[in-house]
Amino acid sequence: MAKAPTPLSAYQELQGAFAADIKNVANQRFLGEVFTASCKYLSHLKTTELRSLIPNKEYFGFTDGKKVSRAVNKRLFLNEPSEWDRFCRGFTAKKAPELDVESITRIIYSVAMSFFCYIDLTKVGDQKTPGTFFEYLIGHLFAWRLEVNPKVRLPVLNLDMEATLPTDFVFDLGENRPKFHVPVKTSTRERVIQVWAHQRVLDGVYGTGRFLGTPVILGETKTDRLKREVIEICLPDQWRIYQLHIAQLKRVYYLDVPVTYEKLNEVFPPLSVKPFGQFFLEADTLPR
Amino acid sequence: MAKAPTPLSAYQELQGAFAADIKNVANQRFLGEVFTASCKYLSHLKTTELRSLIPNKEYFGFTDGKKVSRAVNKRLFLNEPSEWDRFCRGFTAKKAPELDVESITRIIYSVAMSFFCYIDLTKVGDQKTPGTFFEYLIGHLFAWRLEVNPKVRLPVLNLDMEATLPTDFVFDLGENRPKFHVPVKTSTRERVIQVWAHQRVLDGVYGTGRFLGTPVILGETKTDRLKREVIEICLPDQWRIYQLHIAQLKRVYYLDVPVTYEKLNEVFPPLSVKPFGQFFLEADTLPR
Repeated sequence: MAKAPTPLSAYQELQGAFAADIKNVANQRFLGEVFTASCKYLSHLKTTELRSLIPNKEYFGFTDGKKVSRAVNKRLFLNEPSEWDRFCRGFTAKKAPELDVESITRIIYSVAMSFFCYIDLTKVGDQKTPGTFFEYLIGHLFAWRLEVNPKVRLPVLNLDMEATLPTDFVFDLGENRPKFHVPVKTSTRERVIQVWAHQRVLDGVYGTGRFLGTPVILGETKTDRLKREVIEICLPDQWRIYQLHIAQLKRVYYLDVPVTYEKLNEVFPPLSVKPFGQFFLEADTLPR
Repeated sequence: MAKAPTPLSAYQELQGAFAADIKNVANQRFLGEVFTASCKYLSHLKTTELRSLIPNKEYFGFTDGKKVSRAVNKRLFLNEPSEWDRFCRGFTAKKAPELDVESITRIIYSVAMSFFCYIDLTKVGDQKTPGTFFEYLIGHLFAWRLEVNPKVRLPVLNLDMEATLPTDFVFDLGENRPKFHVPVKTSTRERVIQVWAHQRVLDGVYGTGRFLGTPVILGETKTDRLKREVIEICLPDQWRIYQLHIAQLKRVYYLDVPVTYEKLNEVFPPLSVKPFGQFFLEADTLPR
């Protein structure tokens, strides 16, 4: 009998599948195996309540000896690997699924967060693996939903200049259809200005409106490990200034939508901050 | 008899002077003490040749046991604390000094680099102290030369919005004169897009041309510690695209000008990359 995959062995299989064909459903099998193995690992652990300073949100951490994982949103986290299969089946053949925005968001949040907590508790100072895993997860889901593989370099032909521009994921749907510009980050903090600046470059080089800027971010929580307190680091005034003066983003998708940014949906300039689950329902109509 | 200052005790004195009055010449005394104490520490150490893969530049590192400092540019580095006094005296009262661009650049490079190497060899993983020291050094020199203290927040009044924008150093010379926007970095790499994006925000909020973007950067070297090789990490095509599509920087000042960026002086779009010493000679005429 074959040994059950560990989170890391499944992650390595995922790396291979992702490198071969990002949009291929083969990625979903390995994403599911990472999720299953991470849930199995976490199910043996204790959890600790964290003091949430964020209105209407509760957080906890997984603990292993003295180690505490990053903060996990209680309402969003599902330790249920079968949910991933339900999600994948629900979307196959692009039928309108029985899943709503909240359910989709919770499943994807749980896949990411279970693996992040596994890494937090089994590795020291490994920031890179969670970030890369999150790129695989979101990159695959976008590619699968849009049925096209992303590019990470674009040619820039500009009279006497010839160069290529490294970008975040860019999904080109072909003639007379929009292209998506999708930066993927586990959190942004003060580095977020890069997202708008890259959008500005794309607008400038290819024309405003050709690329829909739709970054996908996990969340903006920060945990004070001594006090065991969770806050969200948000810069809403700066976001509004960037949206007015650098470029216009079409959506900012979050798995764990920060309370402060959710309010930007109601002010001017328009900045549409949505749970990532909504992308699956609006992907076809977004350009209109 | 009072004990001679150590690099760190002088650095702490500098912190106090900087917090009290950035443009005050009192900062120069403590900068000089940091330089003197760092040079004294380094003068007891051995050096090791590094293999420079950069045309026409030679680098070495200071060594202490198994530790090797960051790469030091052989032509630029002066282990001569008296040079700092010569520089400060030369500029007092804004008389045209006997110092040329190259001499000024070498002195300032040496003040920064001697303290950086001291930190490299006496601390583990301390990135913050060198970065903060470099901000003090450049912040003071700019303020002293322009005779005005910088701001790090600007009000943004925009119809129904009211907010303040955190910025890098901004020097406001008053009515009918330009303002300087001065990001200070020890190196930029792929984070450099932030500099253009901040300039874009200032252009948008206050009007194009009101702020002269003049970042000051130490250098772009990277050392492979196993191979003991030094390279410069440069993204010249991306810089040209940022200068065309995000905003226009007036100057990019370096202490150790990267070879690849020096060539940008000769291509289109105009991007003026200069040794920092030049700022002292052109500060009054730059706006014209």
